[in-house]
Amino acid sequence: MSAFKVLASQIADLVGGSLVGDDREVIGVAPLNTATPSHLSFLSNQRYLKMLSTSDAGVAIVTQNQADNVRHSAIVVKDPYLAFAKATHLFDWRPSVSPLISSAALVDTTATISPSAQVCAGVVIEAGVSVGERAYIGPNTVIGRGSSVGSDTRVEANVTLYSNVSVGVRCLIHSGAVLGADGFGFAHNGEDWVKIVQLGGVVIGNDVEIGAGTTIDRGALNDTIVADGVKLDNQIQIAHNVEIGKSTAIAGCTAIAGSTRIGSHCTIAGMSGVTGHLDIADRTHITAMSLVSRSIKEAGAYSSGTGIEPHAQWKRNVVRFRQLDTLSQRVRHLEECVKTLSEEGKE
Amino acid sequence: MSAFKVLASQIADLVGGSLVGDDREVIGVAPLNTATPSHLSFLSNQRYLKMLSTSDAGVAIVTQNQADNVRHSAIVVKDPYLAFAKATHLFDWRPSVSPLISSAALVDTTATISPSAQVCAGVVIEAGVSVGERAYIGPNTVIGRGSSVGSDTRVEANVTLYSNVSVGVRCLIHSGAVLGADGFGFAHNGEDWVKIVQLGGVVIGNDVEIGAGTTIDRGALNDTIVADGVKLDNQIQIAHNVEIGKSTAIAGCTAIAGSTRIGSHCTIAGMSGVTGHLDIADRTHITAMSLVSRSIKEAGAYSSGTGIEPHAQWKRNVVRFRQLDTLSQRVRHLEECVKTLSEEGKE
Amino acid sequence: MSAFKVLASQIADLVGGSLVGDDREVIGVAPLNTATPSHLSFLSNQRYLKMLSTSDAGVAIVTQNQADNVRHSAIVVKDPYLAFAKATHLFDWRPSVSPLISSAALVDTTATISPSAQVCAGVVIEAGVSVGERAYIGPNTVIGRGSSVGSDTRVEANVTLYSNVSVGVRCLIHSGAVLGADGFGFAHNGEDWVKIVQLGGVVIGNDVEIGAGTTIDRGALNDTIVADGVKLDNQIQIAHNVEIGKSTAIAGCTAIAGSTRIGSHCTIAGMSGVTGHLDIADRTHITAMSLVSRSIKEAGAYSSGTGIEPHAQWKRNVVRFRQLDTLSQRVRHLEECVKTLSEEGKE
Repeated sequence: MSAFKVLASQIADLVGGSLVGDDREVIGVAPLNTATPSHLSFLSNQRYLKMLSTSDAGVAIVTQNQADNVRHSAIVVKDPYLAFAKATHLFDWRPSVSPLISSAALVDTTATISPSAQVCAGVVIEAGVSVGERAYIGPNTVIGRGSSVGSDTRVEANVTLYSNVSVGVRCLIHSGAVLGADGFGFAHNGEDWVKIVQLGGVVIGNDVEIGAGTTIDRGALNDTIVADGVKLDNQIQIAHNVEIGKSTAIAGCTAIAGSTRIGSHCTIAGMSGVTGHLDIADRTHITAMSLVSRSIKEAGAYSSGTGIEPHAQWKRNVVRFRQLDTLSQRVRHLEECVKTLSEEGKE
Repeated sequence: MSAFKVLASQIADLVGGSLVGDDREVIGVAPLNTATPSHLSFLSNQRYLKMLSTSDAGVAIVTQNQADNVRHSAIVVKDPYLAFAKATHLFDWRPSVSPLISSAALVDTTATISPSAQVCAGVVIEAGVSVGERAYIGPNTVIGRGSSVGSDTRVEANVTLYSNVSVGVRCLIHSGAVLGADGFGFAHNGEDWVKIVQLGGVVIGNDVEIGAGTTIDRGALNDTIVADGVKLDNQIQIAHNVEIGKSTAIAGCTAIAGSTRIGSHCTIAGMSGVTGHLDIADRTHITAMSLVSRSIKEAGAYSSGTGIEPHAQWKRNVVRFRQLDTLSQRVRHLEECVKTLSEEGKE
Repeated sequence: MSAFKVLASQIADLVGGSLVGDDREVIGVAPLNTATPSHLSFLSNQRYLKMLSTSDAGVAIVTQNQADNVRHSAIVVKDPYLAFAKATHLFDWRPSVSPLISSAALVDTTATISPSAQVCAGVVIEAGVSVGERAYIGPNTVIGRGSSVGSDTRVEANVTLYSNVSVGVRCLIHSGAVLGADGFGFAHNGEDWVKIVQLGGVVIGNDVEIGAGTTIDRGALNDTIVADGVKLDNQIQIAHNVEIGKSTAIAGCTAIAGSTRIGSHCTIAGMSGVTGHLDIADRTHITAMSLVSRSIKEAGAYSSGTGIEPHAQWKRNVVRFRQLDTLSQRVRHLEECVKTLSEEGKE
């Protein structure tokens, strides 16, 4: 990768921390246990506290009370993890956007491409598309009629934006993502399915990240909406007319069914599902592989599923799960019997 | 998008309904609460009944007994949702297929492309492929040797059809879909996995819709088969040698493991799984995030999983789930004790 | 497909078996029940034993004790399934790699492409990439700066390799796969998410197969690592800094969260999830749709979830699941009451 040379003082400035010790140059970021004097590192999890005093990291981002344990230079901040996140931007390996439309891209004459944007080889841009300033459109990506990509947005290779998809500024859309495919809408005529033509679009806010292979369907009538600051991991499925509120983060392989509204500042862990036409309150947190099958009105953490256990034991418990209602009734009956017996005993 | 102008009488004709009120022109479709006099709307769910009488929709599709509540014009039908589905086709925003092979497409000289088909920029079509009348092959899609695409089928951008994949007529395949990748077949030699070369193909019937990012593997020996009228949502995984029966609909992120046969007219909700070598009866319905791990012989609705609940409560219950077999045995023991006590009491 | 003509004796040689009966020519492989005298077949599962004696297969791979039941020729081996796997390679329909860079591919002048490699139309190869001997890069695939593809590796159509992704020799990467997209890493500043630039890469060993639509994220600081001989099915999600041990096989739609280490020789069935920062022992086996939410220290089979059951029955049991902790406490109370009653009875 490219060679970086960054001074500890530059990092301290960027993250708003104080440098303790010499100003030094680092060329990369590494975990405490493998960092060399040429690396920046950080301590955010007390689990790794022991590693701090033995780490050879040239610069370590720590809280005030850990600064003495740092061997070389320290940058003292309130929240080392957040400071580390900011510092990583100094080591971004992606080349900066080169204002250029590749001669191997196919851009419709009615599209508006900012002169500061980069359009790579193999890209196909259809009629009426607009691409904003300093936007990057990666190789072999396709953008359908009338869609728009905002300034400073990066659309990686092999992405598909259908027609009438609007993407805000400073977004990042990873490879294999598909925005604006048809929602899954059919009426049944008694024998076969009749397609409902999906007439809405997709609206993606600003500062949204969309993971590799994630699919966001166009709305049936209205648009599917992803608000500002939303972060979507890989292989997520967002069905038609879903709305996702501001700064909500969703981990990989989760699916949100049609017309459901997810609040703002939620976190949904991986492989979860939310069924259709629900309303999920702001600041709701869903644990991994949970199925949300009813609206959630109060913020908080929610879960479903059973824990992992050895297969042989699980097999026995699963049989019992199928008898659970019966078991419950048997316990109720026992309670009555015992009550009767106790009363008889007292007589 | 394009401007549409459609008369209420045209809609009534298409859906087989009777127009009540003036004939009027509408330019789009909208939900009852946002529709203007220029919009078509519909009432299919009694939940939205209240909205009907206040809706400003120029034309509303309703049942006979609701016609009086419509402010402007009504189209009276038996099944408003089905009629609405049909009516959406009048507002299809997709441009009609332009008979043209893009000069930026690469078509093998031995491929047969109908003169009425459209092949977009960046498409790669290998030897022996055939593309039917009025078919549409979207930008950057790849079609492997010997595969075929039927008439009036639409393959969107960035789709991959491997070799020996046959797609019927009037199908719609969304971006990112992959048909004909290798089934997951390996034998174990005691230490490592030995690949089983996947020698079968994929056969897709007519009127099939395949969602974005859905993968359908080629068969190991025979073909993987998707029957006429099947509707597959996004990010579905269909393993090798699966057969899916006529008009079955499967929602997003569901996976069907190898050699399983799904009947006709089934519905499988999202994020469900069906393990391999099973037989699922016609008209079986599976609820969301269920795991089907045995064959289903009788039509009906089936489920697995636990419901969503607050995380703290769930944690306690999950611990109990792991003790369920023991709990059940304890109840059995209690029943015996109580029986003994009762008999002693009667003595 | 291509016409194959293979002698039974060639097959016997390849699989290390003994030919019983005439040497014969076969042109393909088929299951016992549909095989003709021109087909090779095999019996590996005792379930299909009855089919053996009536099968018209020209050549059947069987164990010693089944050889007498074969109508035509038999190849006798210890492990027919393994022998069949090896034999399928004689019928591989993929054309051999043609040493050629398509004139419709875009290859950066600083990339190193072996003269024996094939680079198909629409491929985009960025600066500093290396492609090994006899490697195949399918149509419209994109390979980012500085990545490498080893000898005899096959990257199918529409694959995306980001920058700094290293793929070993004899690998097979299916369409729609994305290697090296950003890991899902953000710090929270109290209101919004701050991206952690993902500075690591992806390292794929030798003899690895990666299914269609599978995504493997680049590491945050270190690399994400997939060891030799690993087999990944379709639509799997491997998060940043995961390590997957040698010869582990993972079925479709499974997700492994960040920094988790999966041991060697594991099997993980489809639609399973493993949460982050866990350690899974070698030779662990996880059944379908299980959520592994704690480290597994001992080899063995593990499961979670509830079995499938009729929906009406399931609904009742799910209600009881939510009361399980309470039920358990009620049983404990009953046990105390019964104990007291028994003691009173004995007095």
